[in-house]
Amino acid sequence: MAHKVQETNMDVDYVVVFRVPDDNKEAGARQFQKLIRALAETGLATEVRRNDETSLFIFVKVADEKTFAEVVYRSRIKDWLHGIRQIQPTQDTAQTLTSEPLSEAERYRMIHHMICCPREEGGAGITPKHGEWKGVEAVFPLHDHAKNKKWLTEFSQKTFLTPEDLDEVRNTMGEKVGYYYAFLQTYFTFLIFPAAFGLSAWLLLGNYSAIYAIVTGLWCVVFVEYWKRQEQELAIRWGVKNVGKIEDKRREFVPDKIITDSITGEQIPYFPSKKRLQRQLLQIPLAILCIIALGAVICTCFAIEIFISEVYDGPLKSVLVFLPTIILTLAVPTITNYLTQFAERLTFFENYETQDAHDKAMVSKVFVINFITSYLGIILTSFVYVPFASLLVPYLDVFSLTVRPFAEHEKQLQTPSPAAFTINPNRLKNQMIYFAVTAQLVNFAMETILPLVTQKGTKKYKEMQSARAEKAGGATPSISANDPPEEKEFLSRVREEAALPEYDVTSDLREMVIQFGYLALFSVIWPATPVSYFINNWIELRGDTFKLTVESRRPNPARADTLGPWLDSMEFLAWLGSITTAALVYMFSGGNGPDGKPHAICLWALLLSVFLSEHVFLVVRMAVRYAISKFDSAAMRKERSERFMVRKKFLEEAGLADAIKPVASPPNSPLKTASGEQAFTSMISRASLEEDARADSLTTSTPADHFWHHQRSWAESERVGIGMIDLMDLKGRGEKKAQ
Amino acid sequence: MAHKVQETNMDVDYVVVFRVPDDNKEAGARQFQKLIRALAETGLATEVRRNDETSLFIFVKVADEKTFAEVVYRSRIKDWLHGIRQIQPTQDTAQTLTSEPLSEAERYRMIHHMICCPREEGGAGITPKHGEWKGVEAVFPLHDHAKNKKWLTEFSQKTFLTPEDLDEVRNTMGEKVGYYYAFLQTYFTFLIFPAAFGLSAWLLLGNYSAIYAIVTGLWCVVFVEYWKRQEQELAIRWGVKNVGKIEDKRREFVPDKIITDSITGEQIPYFPSKKRLQRQLLQIPLAILCIIALGAVICTCFAIEIFISEVYDGPLKSVLVFLPTIILTLAVPTITNYLTQFAERLTFFENYETQDAHDKAMVSKVFVINFITSYLGIILTSFVYVPFASLLVPYLDVFSLTVRPFAEHEKQLQTPSPAAFTINPNRLKNQMIYFAVTAQLVNFAMETILPLVTQKGTKKYKEMQSARAEKAGGATPSISANDPPEEKEFLSRVREEAALPEYDVTSDLREMVIQFGYLALFSVIWPATPVSYFINNWIELRGDTFKLTVESRRPNPARADTLGPWLDSMEFLAWLGSITTAALVYMFSGGNGPDGKPHAICLWALLLSVFLSEHVFLVVRMAVRYAISKFDSAAMRKERSERFMVRKKFLEEAGLADAIKPVASPPNSPLKTASGEQAFTSMISRASLEEDARADSLTTSTPADHFWHHQRSWAESERVGIGMIDLMDLKGRGEKKAQ
Repeated sequence: MAHKVQETNMDVDYVVVFRVPDDNKEAGARQFQKLIRALAETGLATEVRRNDETSLFIFVKVADEKTFAEVVYRSRIKDWLHGIRQIQPTQDTAQTLTSEPLSEAERYRMIHHMICCPREEGGAGITPKHGEWKGVEAVFPLHDHAKNKKWLTEFSQKTFLTPEDLDEVRNTMGEKVGYYYAFLQTYFTFLIFPAAFGLSAWLLLGNYSAIYAIVTGLWCVVFVEYWKRQEQELAIRWGVKNVGKIEDKRREFVPDKIITDSITGEQIPYFPSKKRLQRQLLQIPLAILCIIALGAVICTCFAIEIFISEVYDGPLKSVLVFLPTIILTLAVPTITNYLTQFAERLTFFENYETQDAHDKAMVSKVFVINFITSYLGIILTSFVYVPFASLLVPYLDVFSLTVRPFAEHEKQLQTPSPAAFTINPNRLKNQMIYFAVTAQLVNFAMETILPLVTQKGTKKYKEMQSARAEKAGGATPSISANDPPEEKEFLSRVREEAALPEYDVTSDLREMVIQFGYLALFSVIWPATPVSYFINNWIELRGDTFKLTVESRRPNPARADTLGPWLDSMEFLAWLGSITTAALVYMFSGGNGPDGKPHAICLWALLLSVFLSEHVFLVVRMAVRYAISKFDSAAMRKERSERFMVRKKFLEEAGLADAIKPVASPPNSPLKTASGEQAFTSMISRASLEEDARADSLTTSTPADHFWHHQRSWAESERVGIGMIDLMDLKGRGEKKAQ
Repeated sequence: MAHKVQETNMDVDYVVVFRVPDDNKEAGARQFQKLIRALAETGLATEVRRNDETSLFIFVKVADEKTFAEVVYRSRIKDWLHGIRQIQPTQDTAQTLTSEPLSEAERYRMIHHMICCPREEGGAGITPKHGEWKGVEAVFPLHDHAKNKKWLTEFSQKTFLTPEDLDEVRNTMGEKVGYYYAFLQTYFTFLIFPAAFGLSAWLLLGNYSAIYAIVTGLWCVVFVEYWKRQEQELAIRWGVKNVGKIEDKRREFVPDKIITDSITGEQIPYFPSKKRLQRQLLQIPLAILCIIALGAVICTCFAIEIFISEVYDGPLKSVLVFLPTIILTLAVPTITNYLTQFAERLTFFENYETQDAHDKAMVSKVFVINFITSYLGIILTSFVYVPFASLLVPYLDVFSLTVRPFAEHEKQLQTPSPAAFTINPNRLKNQMIYFAVTAQLVNFAMETILPLVTQKGTKKYKEMQSARAEKAGGATPSISANDPPEEKEFLSRVREEAALPEYDVTSDLREMVIQFGYLALFSVIWPATPVSYFINNWIELRGDTFKLTVESRRPNPARADTLGPWLDSMEFLAWLGSITTAALVYMFSGGNGPDGKPHAICLWALLLSVFLSEHVFLVVRMAVRYAISKFDSAAMRKERSERFMVRKKFLEEAGLADAIKPVASPPNSPLKTASGEQAFTSMISRASLEEDARADSLTTSTPADHFWHHQRSWAESERVGIGMIDLMDLKGRGEKKAQ
């Protein structure tokens, strides 16, 4: 144990938190027995300690390395059969763990698999918070605090993470988290360019610069395509290529019927695709519902805000102007929450067979909701408020209701005539600055600082409460008071970790994708946006590390070979960016008129610029995609060579090495006996030919046999052919004339 | 031999035509010797006959089945290692040919491979018409005339080919031709729908119907996506999935340098991708050149035609109107020819490593040329002539030069004032009818009937000539006079086949793709187009069969698992169709004004309809693609099951069948010794616990060891845990109150 005593994890591999149901102690005891036995049967050693009033910790470690080696071997064989690894694992299980040592994350993944995978596949079949295992509240590994501290210190001291840092994240937290870090790192590095260019564009070219728009569009394409390539290379580097092909069955999947495979004879749970496709059609009403529900709230608040800020002229204006923001802040998360629940239910109803497909379907729905909540406001400002404000403002007086109580007289509520109304030319820019700077800061505070404060507060509060209770006397002594003294520190740490929330890499990833969206769709409004994002993302990575290591339970390592559906979202956003950016540049780059309205917008010119921009984008994307696909990398070369070696080795092992070499000379080739040209021709003696002819007349019967017996061997064919050539009448040699 | 005597192929597998160079008989003889020996060394038997004045036939067949079985086995192992076949071939080469008999096409492919593949890979290394083997004019198998006759009869009697017919085409001609037939068949079948719908639309809705446009667009999407799926299924059915991965090296590839692979130690010829990408950039000037060269000719002829038909009013108008067509007919093929040569040279310059990549690059260039020659005329009519004619016609007087000699007075050449000019409203429709009907007929005549006539004519001419020569006396007797009488008929047939051109499946495929393009892009102009294509394609398939079996040498069977780049072309055309069709419908569906000009075209409305149509197309395509990808088919199920069986078999063979089964109870699991609950608890006696404690104090040293020795076994964990649960203070049970 290299750690200091206060940081040892006591060789614990995994912690299972088991809560006894409030109303049934016996049932709890029975289920607990079952749990312990299931774990023991799987080859895991257990130690039980008390967690809190109604729950236990079951500490789990591998019972003996031999059993564990078998588990690892089985998993590697499976990987090999699914094409995840090229090289067949050595059959000697004793060597399994020594020849290819496991990373920490791999070890934890295996143990998590042992605990959670179904009994048919060799696991204990524990399904936390689900079915009969409802009492199992959590299954998690313990943080490596020394390493966490090292990360926090190191990462905060460098600008860029090295590939080795990423490898370490992957080795500790698994590939899924590793991919997020790699993505964030790549994105951060790529941001240097638009940050530098955006800053110069902001200073030199101003907002709505066409040059900035073109460069950013190009950058988006290159970044997305580069990342796709990077993803593949990481998959090779981390040995997870094709893991998507191992499809873990969803335990919630409800088959329509069980069919028997005609070839394998297996019983396969079956759910018709047609039925699922029909259910998926419900996504359309769901999307419409999202648009209506969120759209209505956002549009209303938007209109109220316009009314108050641009029309209303009464008292408390500076306060009332925050009213719509408050409504939004309260209403949007609530509605989003409802919609997400709808989406979740629909995804369950769609009844996917694999967890992967389920997650993907869920992410695509979440993306729709996020798209509306994130971008609708700014879309309204750019494409409704600015061009149509003078037309729409007169109709805003319905919203006078919201501020009527505060108004002193009707005049303060009167909408101006279209001619008198002036569009606020800075509204769009201010909104973009809000998304580029303020929102990022708020987000960081909500995501990283708030949980910390809450945790500390809760802890303090609990301590104070128990201290008061002790003072008052009569209360049961706290559970931790009974801990063995040498484990006190360890158990209190485990209790703290068990109380933390799970780390959700998807939400961090979503945040980055949404940020990328602002960049692709609207950054032309305020070209300094990428600078802000560049700075923000430096902090983001450190903040996420803090969240991952201090504010969350250690995640169960999961494998992945792609960001999955988020990548599609980014592609979509980059594409959409080519449309919005062209529209924004066309509409606003001419500057605004005296009424704040942009200079004459020609609808056909707007459409034409959008059409051209989009198609140029698509052509460029195709070219970039092609070019990137053609570049070879060390990782890819390595993979190819490995595959080649595997093939070669296979052939050698099977004694077939010569099967890829030519047959040097066929078994009955006459070349074996003759070596020089002289020998060739002398082989066919008069006698042998006559003998052949005789043999022919005895045995041959079909015309084909006759045909093939004119020349008995290749040597005779040669002789006959040369004879024919000799007879030839070649113009070039002028023999005809000689005749 | 089941065939009649006059149709036997004398068991000949392949025919090699060797021509002696005109100027060097000795060199010819030497090369001939080399050829015969190379063939013999590879395990092929040979017979030599005279072809014509300066060339020989070398008839080739497999020398003995054992050597051939080895070749087949080697090829199957290679397939297996590349993932083309799931099941490992049996190692016993004697069984190779009996356990899985070869189809005719496979046999010929193997033999062609033996003749043509490089010596390093076990072949004879003959490269027809290339390098030192320039004298080898052709390497081809002989037609199976009985089967050919059967096909011609059968196919002309049925409307649809059955899957078995397609299998037979594949078994005889190889997968590449098989894919063409399958495509043509699928396309033909799919055409039923637009043909029926188009006919009704033509009768009921008239031209430029929006409904027809929407239905056709949808049809295009479904057809292309369905075919993509069909392709995959055929690949499984024909066992060619992944053949694209076996990358045959191009022998013309010129490496920049030879590098040594660090892992395999192999010497690899290397050409940097960057250099190739730079060379590929030349495609842009090439495309521009194509557009300018062909565009100029087509535009000029177009303008002349307009001038003559709409402006010119002098004598000979009815004759002169064909002038531009004649210019086009002469100039376009010449220019196309030049451009194709340019394209070919550029493709060579791009220096691809594999034949596949080379062909793909060539096809994409050919597609650009074909696109311009096929569609530019009609694009000009729709999007330049009709909307802008009145603006452009005044400038057409430059073309008066072309007809000036025929004009009687200046007035006949005078362009009318824009106001007086009337657009010919039928021009567009007539043009489309030309492409839908006339061009197809002309094409059929050029492709199928003309070669037949030419052949017959040439044969007649030669016969007459030799007859005259014989009459005149003094000439050498014809070569065929010296044929052995029993081979006379056979050899004359081989001579005929050798004189035939090679069958080029690509050009047939191109024709169909271009036809699909007319349908997708312009059929809304004349909705009866699909009817014509439906009829045409019935004839097309029979005509192509005739061309394949009678008018061409039998092709060397080649494998394929896709139509390749043509598929991309079709996708592109379908996409473009969503743009042109929307534009045509918007522009023309309102009918024409009195001057032949369509009713007021609003540019923004045009652009908007194009924009919407395109994006609806893209969304629908995504949905259709998704839906089709979710439908399972028998072939795919079969493949999955097979893969599963292979995995299972592997594990069984390696004695690892239990590696995918769970470890029922780990070796040292205490469950082995205890069976009932009573036994469990009784296992831990006071004594053993004390002993454990003693042992602990002797051996343990770290806190972790201490930690894990509190509970020595799972049974003790269980006991301790149940004890803890018993002590718990559960609110639900109201124990607190009892206290």
